[in-house]
Amino acid sequence: MGMKNNRKLTAVDILAASRLMRDLEDRIPGALERLKDLYTKTGRAYVIGVTGAPGSGKSTLVDRMIDVFRKEGKTVGVVAVDPSSAFSGGAILGDRIRMQRHATDEGVFIRSLATRGCLGGLCRSAQDIINVMDAMGKEIVIVETVGVGQNEIDVVHMAHTSVVVLVPGMGDEMQAIKAGIVEIGDIFVINKCEREGAEKVEGDLRSALGMAGRLNDGWEPPIVRTEATSGKGVPELVTEVYRHKAVLEQGHGLAEKLKEQMKITFLKVLESMVMEHFLNKIQEEGLWDSMLSDLVQRRVDPYTLAERLISEELAGKRPEA
Amino acid sequence: MGMKNNRKLTAVDILAASRLMRDLEDRIPGALERLKDLYTKTGRAYVIGVTGAPGSGKSTLVDRMIDVFRKEGKTVGVVAVDPSSAFSGGAILGDRIRMQRHATDEGVFIRSLATRGCLGGLCRSAQDIINVMDAMGKEIVIVETVGVGQNEIDVVHMAHTSVVVLVPGMGDEMQAIKAGIVEIGDIFVINKCEREGAEKVEGDLRSALGMAGRLNDGWEPPIVRTEATSGKGVPELVTEVYRHKAVLEQGHGLAEKLKEQMKITFLKVLESMVMEHFLNKIQEEGLWDSMLSDLVQRRVDPYTLAERLISEELAGKRPEA
Repeated sequence: MGMKNNRKLTAVDILAASRLMRDLEDRIPGALERLKDLYTKTGRAYVIGVTGAPGSGKSTLVDRMIDVFRKEGKTVGVVAVDPSSAFSGGAILGDRIRMQRHATDEGVFIRSLATRGCLGGLCRSAQDIINVMDAMGKEIVIVETVGVGQNEIDVVHMAHTSVVVLVPGMGDEMQAIKAGIVEIGDIFVINKCEREGAEKVEGDLRSALGMAGRLNDGWEPPIVRTEATSGKGVPELVTEVYRHKAVLEQGHGLAEKLKEQMKITFLKVLESMVMEHFLNKIQEEGLWDSMLSDLVQRRVDPYTLAERLISEELAGKRPEA
Repeated sequence: MGMKNNRKLTAVDILAASRLMRDLEDRIPGALERLKDLYTKTGRAYVIGVTGAPGSGKSTLVDRMIDVFRKEGKTVGVVAVDPSSAFSGGAILGDRIRMQRHATDEGVFIRSLATRGCLGGLCRSAQDIINVMDAMGKEIVIVETVGVGQNEIDVVHMAHTSVVVLVPGMGDEMQAIKAGIVEIGDIFVINKCEREGAEKVEGDLRSALGMAGRLNDGWEPPIVRTEATSGKGVPELVTEVYRHKAVLEQGHGLAEKLKEQMKITFLKVLESMVMEHFLNKIQEEGLWDSMLSDLVQRRVDPYTLAERLISEELAGKRPEA
């Protein structure tokens, strides 16, 4: 088991790292112990979140960012979070296939991750994978995710710099802007900037940032225009990432951010472990059938039932006053 | 306190119901006990989920659906889930304002809900509100949400019939279709169907449904064209909802669905209560500061720390083998 030797993994044991990631996702016994062993080696990667609507060209953009980082000699890990797969069961790679051209580059490690519904799964899995890539010595870890809402929020909680990707001509820019993205981006990208309407998106975005008070905030989020298919604007984007990193490191922003993110990570881990414990108890004691029929028939409400289960498990403590 | 008298609430105590919903969201002590009292009165509302990308016109569509249900004399509750507000702290109503014209109609109850990040908050809050509306005697409860990913999944877990809204001309229909929506819709709507490209969206959607095996599945999801601003197609949509309801009730689909949904509801409640317990413990014992500094300095990993906390709390049990 090469995994027991951290130095080996930290160097080039890519296969072992892949296996560990898969084992963590599948909750194979022992995988967690291996991750714990690696944990002291984490905290060195710089984590960049890239998020935006479907069709905004995020994957191509990430692909081009990899090029820029690789040219600088930096190693890169990518976690591509795929929210579609909660139903289909496996990651639908779609246009991520194009990132595969980096597959033969040992300095790049790409991993797709299916999200698993709301019960602690998603957030912890993505963080676990970031931790493994970090321990492997990847200097840059990019987390790419689709969508408005929970997935974006999770990425923000994991990333040092959050990049939000918009495109002109979707006709619904203001909608997207209204929907809270102005508050989560450290850097905004207008991708497919050759399309008509780039000025309008940028103007709308800038006024939305102003209204949200983001323009006098210590860090004024830059807006970068890119054309990911040709690579245009991507070096400028990477420069802005470095500039944001420097600002975070100079002020006390980074320490605060790391602390807040660690808190969220810890709570996710705790949540996932506690729920695993309760699920095991319910399954082992064969409680599902009677519990569910009581609930469906309204013989008991879920709140009372949950309280009962918790007080059985927690030594002499009541869950709610 | 009119709330203690269930019959009063079930009839017309709208103010008390509003107060209960707010108290539940704010976790005011006692609110949960009131919800428990009401719980035996739940399970009668028919819950319809409406989801789609920002700008797809969901709110207008829901508004028109309310009209149709009200003309039939049915009472309606609406839960508008707003994922933007995890950051802004309050629900950004945006175009939901237009639903306000129903505000003077006692048969309609509309409630916006801010989502609260990943720690059990969102899902439980929305379900709590559905339960109150159900107990109030609302015959139809519509849950409206934005986005791709987690929010949609949650709505599917709460709704008897899930409606997915698409629009022509976004240029990214196939992306959206790829992203898993074909698996979550019981009914698909092509809204703004007067726009160019409606045929293309419908064709793309139909072939995606075919590929996903949804066309020979017991229920072939219908595709309804609407123009929500004028109301065109909305009565047909409501007819399809009733047809889906009838199919669910005739087969054993509904019983299975209710059982599965109850399981998820119960797990959310359990998760939220357990985490509340642990958060209280950490705060009361003033553990945050030392825990976070240990974690940030990598003196301990979050997995070991979580296990330690869990085994302190759970009487003589180990959380992981």
